[in-house]
Amino acid sequence: MRILGVDPGLTRCGVGVVEGLPGRPCRLVAVGVIRTPPEDDIPDRLLAVEAGITEYLDRYRPEAVAVERVFSQHNVASVIGTAQAAAVAILGAARRGIPVHTYTPSEAKAAVTGSGTADKRQMTTMVTRLLRLAEPPKPADAADALALAICHVWRGGTKARLLAAGRRTTKGVRT
Amino acid sequence: MRILGVDPGLTRCGVGVVEGLPGRPCRLVAVGVIRTPPEDDIPDRLLAVEAGITEYLDRYRPEAVAVERVFSQHNVASVIGTAQAAAVAILGAARRGIPVHTYTPSEAKAAVTGSGTADKRQMTTMVTRLLRLAEPPKPADAADALALAICHVWRGGTKARLLAAGRRTTKGVRT
Repeated sequence: MRILGVDPGLTRCGVGVVEGLPGRPCRLVAVGVIRTPPEDDIPDRLLAVEAGITEYLDRYRPEAVAVERVFSQHNVASVIGTAQAAAVAILGAARRGIPVHTYTPSEAKAAVTGSGTADKRQMTTMVTRLLRLAEPPKPADAADALALAICHVWRGGTKARLLAAGRRTTKGVRT
Repeated sequence: MRILGVDPGLTRCGVGVVEGLPGRPCRLVAVGVIRTPPEDDIPDRLLAVEAGITEYLDRYRPEAVAVERVFSQHNVASVIGTAQAAAVAILGAARRGIPVHTYTPSEAKAAVTGSGTADKRQMTTMVTRLLRLAEPPKPADAADALALAICHVWRGGTKARLLAAGRRTTKGVRT
């Protein structure tokens, strides 16, 4: 499966596409960062994030999108911009009928490092190793986007199958 | 000028269109509330808000959109949904080239009641009176959306003209 991971942000929005199967190594398809100048107006910044996300969705045609879940416990000063960038990504995918899944930073960390409390350096090291890259993806937002995509391949794939199986056997039970 | 006011929210997003000129009474064009069920997934809720905003933008063709500014001081539990609904409204307008202005709740309150600390009841009373409505717009989100639109006609109109004049005479100076 081909997954787009999005680490949302207005100043830097990490985007990364990987291909893989649960329990098998993933392959890097594309990675990048959408940047918008903090001095620009919000409407222009949201349009720029949308243009970047649209390019990734239309060029790489992912089967699902994995977005980092925004918490109000995040840095309060940046939570609004993060939530708005996430909304742009979620809306772009939803408009195309692409399923969207959200993962907490801990879930993404645990998926690639085995620990939900791993630091940025450890995350980047593991993303580099798991995708067998010649050098670490930069900046950290790009590595985080790839970690979210890998997390979805490994966890989401299983979760989606369990959910589908659950729906078949126990209709109406929310899992 | 015809203005769409948006009081953003995922559960209830107030939308109101008024027509008027600075210093003159405004006329109600349309008012409503876009509701999305809290138990729905975020992608579906954002799509529903987008569909509602799109309908208002395309049917009433406002010259500008006035959106309540989201603060991180807001109720932290709801700030993410509010920020995301605001993003959907801002993006919809920006995509159509319609200027977006944001106003704080105090600015909208001061515009219609003369006091930035007016309560909901006072706001609704003044919106009803200013638009010469037979009965108060309900729920409060609808009245708030109309207050934002009136606020833009009265304040934003002036601000826009000052900005335009400033751009003509002092190019490059940010006002």
